[in-house]
Amino acid sequence: MKYGFGIDLGGTTVKLAYFDETGEMLDKWEIPTNTADGGKNILPDIAQAILKYMEEKKIPKDCILGAGIGVPGAVNSRGEVAGCDNLGWGHFSVRDALEPLLGFRVVAGNDATVAALGECWKGGGQGCNSMVMVTLGTGVGGGIIIDGKPVHGSTGAGGEIGHMVLNRNETAKCGCGKSGCVEQYCSATGIARLTRLALAENDTPSTLRSVEKIMAKDVFDAAAAGDSIAQGVLQQVYAYMGEFIANICCVVNPEVVVLGGGVSRAGQVLLDGVKESFKKWGYHACQDTQFRLATLGNDAGAYGAFKLIAE
Amino acid sequence: MKYGFGIDLGGTTVKLAYFDETGEMLDKWEIPTNTADGGKNILPDIAQAILKYMEEKKIPKDCILGAGIGVPGAVNSRGEVAGCDNLGWGHFSVRDALEPLLGFRVVAGNDATVAALGECWKGGGQGCNSMVMVTLGTGVGGGIIIDGKPVHGSTGAGGEIGHMVLNRNETAKCGCGKSGCVEQYCSATGIARLTRLALAENDTPSTLRSVEKIMAKDVFDAAAAGDSIAQGVLQQVYAYMGEFIANICCVVNPEVVVLGGGVSRAGQVLLDGVKESFKKWGYHACQDTQFRLATLGNDAGAYGAFKLIAE
Repeated sequence: MKYGFGIDLGGTTVKLAYFDETGEMLDKWEIPTNTADGGKNILPDIAQAILKYMEEKKIPKDCILGAGIGVPGAVNSRGEVAGCDNLGWGHFSVRDALEPLLGFRVVAGNDATVAALGECWKGGGQGCNSMVMVTLGTGVGGGIIIDGKPVHGSTGAGGEIGHMVLNRNETAKCGCGKSGCVEQYCSATGIARLTRLALAENDTPSTLRSVEKIMAKDVFDAAAAGDSIAQGVLQQVYAYMGEFIANICCVVNPEVVVLGGGVSRAGQVLLDGVKESFKKWGYHACQDTQFRLATLGNDAGAYGAFKLIAE
Repeated sequence: MKYGFGIDLGGTTVKLAYFDETGEMLDKWEIPTNTADGGKNILPDIAQAILKYMEEKKIPKDCILGAGIGVPGAVNSRGEVAGCDNLGWGHFSVRDALEPLLGFRVVAGNDATVAALGECWKGGGQGCNSMVMVTLGTGVGGGIIIDGKPVHGSTGAGGEIGHMVLNRNETAKCGCGKSGCVEQYCSATGIARLTRLALAENDTPSTLRSVEKIMAKDVFDAAAAGDSIAQGVLQQVYAYMGEFIANICCVVNPEVVVLGGGVSRAGQVLLDGVKESFKKWGYHACQDTQFRLATLGNDAGAYGAFKLIAE
């Protein structure tokens, strides 16, 4: 039996996990991400944590397949990062930097794409060969899996579905500099923004008027309790989601769409809303696309990272 | 040296070509597509044409890699056609039906996806590993190539980009049954339709008013001659094209976008218009995407079909 590591590098913590070659997670732990000095200690810290773990557990190097790593930025198919703003990193090859520190094989990918790979392998997309992961968090990320392989994209922007254009008439700016992106409507912050706009539009009574800082969860809760403003906002959000997911399906026609990220904790009601809207906007040959919720939560990244080297 | 056949099956003619294994086209010819009796003679006719060719040229079977075939309908990764309306075909496996007739290996794919593969291999996408082909003809088709391989899609709808939603408020129906599809604005018929709408909207003088049946070419010609209605329509078309191509690039982030089909005969002016609009709508990490014109014309399908079995 061979073994390996999956590394999910985030802006505040690094999640590390140890797997056997079948993909069973045998152990997991975290270390802080040290972003000081342009992030130059991040990879040495990771290498030290892994080598110390191997020493403690008396794991010989020749049992190790390697380590996969997901990083929060665009990674091209050569393992090169174009830049990760929240780590302080510039352009360099994560693989070439980490391999000599560890002494075994390293494969790198974008964190959202890598999490999608994890969900496809061991989570919501299990049993499917092609998958679109839609990660509805603070922003909207995603990952595309075709024939079991992640689509990194020529410059690492594969699966950047949060920046598809949904509303060409939008005047508010997206974080990316454009206007009208998916992220401005379908992320947790987007749902809160649409709710504030809806509340400002008229005087319809709403329990949300007394909430100081509206979160997406408040909107789902209010809608469930019958609040008409919240219900109206979610209908609009589902309409947008069905539409942009229908557009993705026209491009890659996956077996399954997996919804993940914080907003997906809304669960079945979200799934039903998106499916209903997809029925309207989806191309007829895509109508059998399955919709499922992500199941791996915060572990998706580590599973996917390990899968990068396990295949 | 090994050899093989590329077959591009259309609604009225079948284009056949003979290749050596490097992809050099050694010969090509056409036979009519006999759609009588539910299209049951189509594959026997093709097999007969190929076997007769091999007999005449004294080509031994053991030199043959196989035959690839592009068909005008959804073909899944198992070579199964879900239905080709204009051939009269129902659901069956083209591969399983044609292989015994020929006595060698057959691989089938959707015609637009197969043409994209041809353009990526020997045409406008040459030298690139990932490509989006946008075929602007009577309708809008497309094909997605990732890591040199065509994305057929789970139900054969990979690259059906003509049915992405561009205008959720459209009331006119698309041929697919939905409303607001790319095809309704960016195809040759879509451009003509938008021109008729623009002419009906006001009394601005236009040379197009005297044209009995407006074709896309008339619109490009009038715009080049300074006609303001035609120029306005094309600005709108370029805006739409830049937007939906930007959305495709957020999903698969290709190295190159290749524009083909009848509308692409407009050439550099189309390329420039689309690139300008893409600059506005494209995600920043996709801004280096190349834009090129297709170069293989009607031979793209045969090249791509042969590539299906050459790899």
